[in-house]
Amino acid sequence: MPTDFAATKSLFHLPEGVIYLDGNSLGPMVKTAPARMARAMEGEWAELLIRGWNKAGWMAQPAVLGDRIGRLIGAAPGTVVLGDTLSIKVYQALASALEMNPKRKVILSDTGNFPSDLYMAEGLCRTLGGQYRLKTVAPEEVMSAIDDTVAVTLITEVDYRTGRRHHMGDITKRAHEMGALTIWDLAHSAGALPVDLTGTKADFAVGCTYKYLNSGPGGPAFIYVAPRHAETARPALSGWLGHEAPFAFDLAYRPGRGIERMRVGTPPVLQMAALEAALDVWDGVDMTEVHLQSLRLQDQFIKAIGTRAPMLQLATPRSHLMRGSQVSFRHPEGYAIMQALIAEGVIGDFRAPDILRFGFTPLYIDDDDVAQAVNRLAKIMDYGSWDKPEFKQRALVT
Amino acid sequence: MPTDFAATKSLFHLPEGVIYLDGNSLGPMVKTAPARMARAMEGEWAELLIRGWNKAGWMAQPAVLGDRIGRLIGAAPGTVVLGDTLSIKVYQALASALEMNPKRKVILSDTGNFPSDLYMAEGLCRTLGGQYRLKTVAPEEVMSAIDDTVAVTLITEVDYRTGRRHHMGDITKRAHEMGALTIWDLAHSAGALPVDLTGTKADFAVGCTYKYLNSGPGGPAFIYVAPRHAETARPALSGWLGHEAPFAFDLAYRPGRGIERMRVGTPPVLQMAALEAALDVWDGVDMTEVHLQSLRLQDQFIKAIGTRAPMLQLATPRSHLMRGSQVSFRHPEGYAIMQALIAEGVIGDFRAPDILRFGFTPLYIDDDDVAQAVNRLAKIMDYGSWDKPEFKQRALVT
Repeated sequence: MPTDFAATKSLFHLPEGVIYLDGNSLGPMVKTAPARMARAMEGEWAELLIRGWNKAGWMAQPAVLGDRIGRLIGAAPGTVVLGDTLSIKVYQALASALEMNPKRKVILSDTGNFPSDLYMAEGLCRTLGGQYRLKTVAPEEVMSAIDDTVAVTLITEVDYRTGRRHHMGDITKRAHEMGALTIWDLAHSAGALPVDLTGTKADFAVGCTYKYLNSGPGGPAFIYVAPRHAETARPALSGWLGHEAPFAFDLAYRPGRGIERMRVGTPPVLQMAALEAALDVWDGVDMTEVHLQSLRLQDQFIKAIGTRAPMLQLATPRSHLMRGSQVSFRHPEGYAIMQALIAEGVIGDFRAPDILRFGFTPLYIDDDDVAQAVNRLAKIMDYGSWDKPEFKQRALVT
Repeated sequence: MPTDFAATKSLFHLPEGVIYLDGNSLGPMVKTAPARMARAMEGEWAELLIRGWNKAGWMAQPAVLGDRIGRLIGAAPGTVVLGDTLSIKVYQALASALEMNPKRKVILSDTGNFPSDLYMAEGLCRTLGGQYRLKTVAPEEVMSAIDDTVAVTLITEVDYRTGRRHHMGDITKRAHEMGALTIWDLAHSAGALPVDLTGTKADFAVGCTYKYLNSGPGGPAFIYVAPRHAETARPALSGWLGHEAPFAFDLAYRPGRGIERMRVGTPPVLQMAALEAALDVWDGVDMTEVHLQSLRLQDQFIKAIGTRAPMLQLATPRSHLMRGSQVSFRHPEGYAIMQALIAEGVIGDFRAPDILRFGFTPLYIDDDDVAQAVNRLAKIMDYGSWDKPEFKQRALVT
């Protein structure tokens, strides 16, 4: 049965008068989330207290919700677990991969990767000592840069700035041919497009839940380890909940079974309650349909902006195969233009130095939203109404 | 003005018929927390969406709430920041300290430390390579084990199992005399007793908020760095929100100013909303009073159990100077006894192999609670009513 996008839209709380094209940064709230949270607080925490760990299933939740996300990214049950932040999960995956490929000393990434991934890699190299190195090439040079020095590739499938999509299957295949492991950052993929971790034979994957999966600000990250590595991967961040028997309180660490070892500390139970409500919307949704619908909305936007606001330069590839769920344009005054647009009720965001980003998330964005967003953006460009001091003042968070 | 403990008790939601002596594991909910959370979800997230980072102050919250916790642990404003889990913060503090003391290769801890601290240290040593070593001695041998090989001490001030308290001032002084740095885990100290990080000249401290600070299951951890180290400490977990300019999206990491560099990824905004409500209770509370009141309640409990259930062997030191906010007893059938007690409405917890733990948290535990807890525990011991199969079956989480 095809996904009824009008029906999914009705499940979200969207502020009156706002067209929200920034679900690629922070997804909106599903209407059921406050009640689910109230239950977690007043029914579970307040009433069960410490007993909630067993009786409300808090301890199992990182794996239970991990499986529900797993369905959206082509991961088998028992291969995904929630916790921490994406940066922490990048560190864990990288440290594991480097230990599994000990003769190689190079982490390969690209300049389009999200900076925190690069910073975490840099921090790990520093901790590991002088012989390790992070090598960063242009996105289009990743394939040719995979040589026999590379221990692991660390690539974000969809570029946070340009929206350019890497070919996960090809890169993974090339990496394996050259003896390298792969880590895929799915921050802009999970909930945006079909991901097939099993089919592409990806080794590790990490992602966040507060963008397309709508878990709310600061929702937990997730990590995937391919089943063939599950008993080999050794997390550098070896916390007690990743121990084989956390409640034995042994003095020495023994990694837990499979993906469980990637857990670190106490899971964020309240954030997970919001995520649980958000995931209900995804049950029965087909990722291919979501992506095709997003591409259709993107095409409408690209075409209309090309005609009506041609001074905005498209930064996203035109090929459907090279796109995620986001369209970006460049303009030297991108920051002020985006602020003017937000003042008109269309929320996208800006990424330094000159990128305007627009996310097209079909679960709650429809054709009419796209048409209205185009109208308001074209008007701002026609009248130059972005050229005001109040739109140029940079906020703490852009 | 002395703290009115009857008044603070009325601020907590405590389930009908339950005496809760496990605030040392998971604190109860303050009554205002659900409304604060509803505001974070329905007023901030749902309505402001991505704009919440600026307009609702989400980005600043880890430092703002850090300062409020700072007051309770003798830390100056701008020296504490929230985020991640305690295990992650241990790793960050350890990695920083080892880099600051490069000629030394030994981390000194004790067998009474919480295992996750030891596991994280073990994982870090493994990542750092063969020359680093975690040395673990008995709690009472820590002082004499601080020699000129020790790079850093990693000590939990109050032993999670026995409730034995280390002398933070003496150990820190000894460590500094021997050229070592100190990391204090305040998991069982923050909100339990007066801590003076500034006065004792502690170098680093870490702690969690879901125990005595009542932030709810999975609430964020905190980290303190002494001002004299703030611009030197280099976090191994160098995430984007610890960058000097996160929204510049530079490719290379530059540590942020002072404590800000200890931030890693996106903060857990919803968990922080619950913490914010919980911290309101602490404003105006004096930690010395809280600890004295706790010791008074503990003394009542110890004395009465000594008379009425002498087969329970006290595991906590009798000296007030060596106690936190918890009293522990040993019994070979401790697990079953605790389950029987919980069935009678008195919630404490069990720690393998044989420890029954009871937390005395004066903000919501009073003399009458202690008397009733004694009565029910004595009755269970008198009648041997713990000796039933249903009390011996171990749950996932103990």
